[in-house]
Amino acid sequence: MIIHLRSNVNKQEASQIAEGIKAFHIISNGKNVLITGSGIKEVPEFISDKVDAFWTFPNDMQLASRNYLSETRKVKIGNVTIGGDSKNTILIGGPCSVESEDQIRNSAQLLVGLGLTTLRGGCYKPRTSPYSFQGLGLDGLKLLAKMRDEFGLNVITEARDATHIQEIIDYTDVIQVGAKAMYDQGILRACAKTNKPVLIKRGFGTTLQELAQAAEFVMSGGNENVILCERGLRTFETGTRFTLDLCGVAWMQEHTNLPVILDPSHAMGYAYGVPSLARACVAMGIDGLLIEAHPDPSVAKSDASQQLNHNQFRDLLDGLKPVAQSVGYKIV
Amino acid sequence: MIIHLRSNVNKQEASQIAEGIKAFHIISNGKNVLITGSGIKEVPEFISDKVDAFWTFPNDMQLASRNYLSETRKVKIGNVTIGGDSKNTILIGGPCSVESEDQIRNSAQLLVGLGLTTLRGGCYKPRTSPYSFQGLGLDGLKLLAKMRDEFGLNVITEARDATHIQEIIDYTDVIQVGAKAMYDQGILRACAKTNKPVLIKRGFGTTLQELAQAAEFVMSGGNENVILCERGLRTFETGTRFTLDLCGVAWMQEHTNLPVILDPSHAMGYAYGVPSLARACVAMGIDGLLIEAHPDPSVAKSDASQQLNHNQFRDLLDGLKPVAQSVGYKIV
Amino acid sequence: MIIHLRSNVNKQEASQIAEGIKAFHIISNGKNVLITGSGIKEVPEFISDKVDAFWTFPNDMQLASRNYLSETRKVKIGNVTIGGDSKNTILIGGPCSVESEDQIRNSAQLLVGLGLTTLRGGCYKPRTSPYSFQGLGLDGLKLLAKMRDEFGLNVITEARDATHIQEIIDYTDVIQVGAKAMYDQGILRACAKTNKPVLIKRGFGTTLQELAQAAEFVMSGGNENVILCERGLRTFETGTRFTLDLCGVAWMQEHTNLPVILDPSHAMGYAYGVPSLARACVAMGIDGLLIEAHPDPSVAKSDASQQLNHNQFRDLLDGLKPVAQSVGYKIV
Amino acid sequence: MIIHLRSNVNKQEASQIAEGIKAFHIISNGKNVLITGSGIKEVPEFISDKVDAFWTFPNDMQLASRNYLSETRKVKIGNVTIGGDSKNTILIGGPCSVESEDQIRNSAQLLVGLGLTTLRGGCYKPRTSPYSFQGLGLDGLKLLAKMRDEFGLNVITEARDATHIQEIIDYTDVIQVGAKAMYDQGILRACAKTNKPVLIKRGFGTTLQELAQAAEFVMSGGNENVILCERGLRTFETGTRFTLDLCGVAWMQEHTNLPVILDPSHAMGYAYGVPSLARACVAMGIDGLLIEAHPDPSVAKSDASQQLNHNQFRDLLDGLKPVAQSVGYKIV
Repeated sequence: MIIHLRSNVNKQEASQIAEGIKAFHIISNGKNVLITGSGIKEVPEFISDKVDAFWTFPNDMQLASRNYLSETRKVKIGNVTIGGDSKNTILIGGPCSVESEDQIRNSAQLLVGLGLTTLRGGCYKPRTSPYSFQGLGLDGLKLLAKMRDEFGLNVITEARDATHIQEIIDYTDVIQVGAKAMYDQGILRACAKTNKPVLIKRGFGTTLQELAQAAEFVMSGGNENVILCERGLRTFETGTRFTLDLCGVAWMQEHTNLPVILDPSHAMGYAYGVPSLARACVAMGIDGLLIEAHPDPSVAKSDASQQLNHNQFRDLLDGLKPVAQSVGYKIV
Repeated sequence: MIIHLRSNVNKQEASQIAEGIKAFHIISNGKNVLITGSGIKEVPEFISDKVDAFWTFPNDMQLASRNYLSETRKVKIGNVTIGGDSKNTILIGGPCSVESEDQIRNSAQLLVGLGLTTLRGGCYKPRTSPYSFQGLGLDGLKLLAKMRDEFGLNVITEARDATHIQEIIDYTDVIQVGAKAMYDQGILRACAKTNKPVLIKRGFGTTLQELAQAAEFVMSGGNENVILCERGLRTFETGTRFTLDLCGVAWMQEHTNLPVILDPSHAMGYAYGVPSLARACVAMGIDGLLIEAHPDPSVAKSDASQQLNHNQFRDLLDGLKPVAQSVGYKIV
Repeated sequence: MIIHLRSNVNKQEASQIAEGIKAFHIISNGKNVLITGSGIKEVPEFISDKVDAFWTFPNDMQLASRNYLSETRKVKIGNVTIGGDSKNTILIGGPCSVESEDQIRNSAQLLVGLGLTTLRGGCYKPRTSPYSFQGLGLDGLKLLAKMRDEFGLNVITEARDATHIQEIIDYTDVIQVGAKAMYDQGILRACAKTNKPVLIKRGFGTTLQELAQAAEFVMSGGNENVILCERGLRTFETGTRFTLDLCGVAWMQEHTNLPVILDPSHAMGYAYGVPSLARACVAMGIDGLLIEAHPDPSVAKSDASQQLNHNQFRDLLDGLKPVAQSVGYKIV
Repeated sequence: MIIHLRSNVNKQEASQIAEGIKAFHIISNGKNVLITGSGIKEVPEFISDKVDAFWTFPNDMQLASRNYLSETRKVKIGNVTIGGDSKNTILIGGPCSVESEDQIRNSAQLLVGLGLTTLRGGCYKPRTSPYSFQGLGLDGLKLLAKMRDEFGLNVITEARDATHIQEIIDYTDVIQVGAKAMYDQGILRACAKTNKPVLIKRGFGTTLQELAQAAEFVMSGGNENVILCERGLRTFETGTRFTLDLCGVAWMQEHTNLPVILDPSHAMGYAYGVPSLARACVAMGIDGLLIEAHPDPSVAKSDASQQLNHNQFRDLLDGLKPVAQSVGYKIV
């Protein structure tokens, strides 16, 4: 249950009420908002005169539910707004991993030259083998920050586990919670304490409901700037790396109030399919795309097969613009 | 291995050679073509002087492979051509099941009014319970044929099992092999004996490779007019009915030479998601769409939740046209 | 709903009632039994005085449900009874495919020498490629029949599609409906017309509920001698061929009244895992096992990697006996 | 590649070599052992005279591979040894969550009364909703430690994320890495720094290869006391909570040298199936079982439906003993 308290209830009193009914307490648009589990269906008698409005839910998707807030939430990434009535589809590009200053500057220049605003690049790689390249870690974060300073780009990178989440919050403009880390409460709870946008990737074995509930961890802790990201399910099909779940995207758009960004690169696993899949995504009227591009994919230290080279990335953008326009969106 | 025999080898001789090397023998574009298993990598010595060209393959996707034929095959559905360089996306509409003459005429009129050409409607429903509506059977086929006569529409319906495949071949313009029936060799071998187009739906537990090999059953038997259809995988996600595999579509477009038609209605299972998914499909530059629409979905005898009503179908078409145009295709 | 009519209602009258209420009508243990869809929750007024007992169900698993019949049904395979209180686990052995008279006789001799009773061997192979070995067809059936005559063994083989189901019914003692064919109503309806035991394999993408409903097709058509068979699901895991679903077996044992036979050979796909998996199956108190064994797996025309050789088969049986005994069963 | 250095190479020199070739360096059974990625197939020339033996591998399962060490590794849990030639199957019992001192003492007494040695109980619950019971945290750990002191039991609990991994290492005898946390390098790297046994649960969307590689993170960091745990895959089947992968267990037993413990409770999700599944597991000759039992499951704060009550747990143990004996194992 979500409860909006009346404006004459001050923050301290709201806090006490929250504690009394074991609810989360956040300040949202200047209002004191309490959130309990969805099992609670009636406002406790003793606070009934302090309640301005309340909502009940069939399950624990509450703050993220369209039944609570019917429009899509706005999230600002630097100067770019997605969601709301912005009709913006943000195209986030960059390499799988930050590998060197030259490489990441090359990527940054690509984006700037195309009028794009947001650079991705992994620093803490969630590799499944200890013997693979694990990312540059803090050094990588510093390179991303340097690109931000040089080019005015926003940067986004992924938290692999809770040991470095604070560094990522400090250094980036958007915090990415990786597909393998999205159940990690150490990360989610830390993200709740900042007000930077948090992009939560759906795990490859994660239900839509669980993804929405991961967002609830961040939102009920006080940070409502959450973006959902679909990047492919693990299915029996091995001809492609994963299976991008666009039915799930339709579900998210219908049932949640959060912006949705898609990652066709990881889903497909092969560069050849990325442009057509990206067009498919854009035709759904989505809020953004994550596309992996590398100055020279053949020497990439991770995900070599799925990264576009820079010419392919430019072609992809050329192909996306008319599709976006055909559904009333623009690529930013 | 695929072998093109020289033009001076006549049909009878070709047949004898085929028997000798246990190959399939078809006449394709006037040529005698032999097909063996892909394990064969070298042309048998004794026919080497009769061979015009040959192709080897890493697996049993051969006639359907782009390595054999680099352009997409053309398939004619009535007056409409898909594949090749046609840049046509055929929109096939109609109800899940043929229920009555009034109902199916209503559907036919919808299509005609919108300038569309091909009507779908199930007659033999592959229900999983014996206690559900099983379709009108032959009576349904006759109603479809009547609509063809009245309105000049092409009709397509699904074969559930081999007991009625000949009726379906006789009555329809496109033979649909259902998702649950696509391993059925009784059906596939019968489809090989006609030259009508055959649309093979991918089973919800079927790999891309197996789908391509189902096509090989029909093609190696002599009918190369095969269309592949993706209609959703069965995954762990239960928020939607199935998971439409657009990564798989990218794979089919890259690796096979067959036209690809998509069925977002069955994948989604809910009408709300069908229009945006259909736009996603069209943005990939596909050859067709199957969309379920019913004059009044609330009373439909099967798949009530996923069928569009006729106003929704008109809106869907309006939304698809600009997307098709943005990728250089047109809806027909 | 299942309705038992009173003993003073004769067969003809029962038939008329069934037609009137669109119910299936079978004779079961001498009783007239009607079965409608599970949506029907109340006995029609006009027959209320002809009803001896009735059962309602939450879904279309009815005749197969333990809520209808609490004990496991008995099924006779030749002289061997499984189910009921028999505590028998029947071990069915033999090659993947019948390849030659020598080979299948060798298999038959193995079984006879071990005191086993039932021989398996595929004649119509549901191969996914037209270029693979497709089985000996009717010639294979005749070889199986010959082994029955020579050795007094029961034989079981698989129907691939409806075109040859009658031959299989005629030639075998147990009709196997294959995993890829289990939605095939042409097969299921034909099986309903015989009284021979029917073993229905669960498709690799089939839910437990759907498997039970496939049984309902056969049972509601008049043949209650149905056996369920679990043989592995298709999952994302590729280290093994399929994933044997023993949770599903526990579900079947709890919710259905049908005997359950398991096929660890197909699930595993590798001979090395078959003996330990077979022990696992037997420890659950199951009604039977299907195990693939070949005189020389290295030359088998199908499924070479998962077939045991005959020494391995003997060792497997030695290993199973004490496990069966430990749960109060015996291997027959 | 794994390299055993000669005994005349001291630890410091080994360390320098490791750094030079970017290898991990551990001391194993008194030997200096280096581990590089599996891509390395030849011993670097400059150390060839310092190498005692080396092994190459087709992939990054190396220390965990039977090709490196053919016998199963021994792991000691308190006084109990599993693996090696012990033929012990350890039965670990206790509630899903530690809820109160009374409750966990009740559980401890159950185990002691049955001669069992190891108590489980969750303190940091990896719930998917922020509004559910999240576990008692450190207070729960202290209760487990109290039970150890009172009853001489070993205790095991699960790490949810890296923020509390050190507490868990400090308080428990076996560190459990949860199914949702098993890619968490913050946890895995911390586990590598202790020598306590680490039980790694396979994620419900995790391949066998990835599970083995999670073990490699711990082992290559210096802690070889790793146990693998299968607890069910997430598949399309919703009749049961997950799908226990016993084919995968056969794979682990064939390909890895690590002890294997199974968790049928989480896989099944319903108490009714746990005893028969547990028997199936034991019949495979496994190293242990995790079984959830609660003094009163009906009031449990998590996983109420799958926990056995104490009478059911006693019956389960009675049923397991003869099965274990039939395969030459004993329950400890």
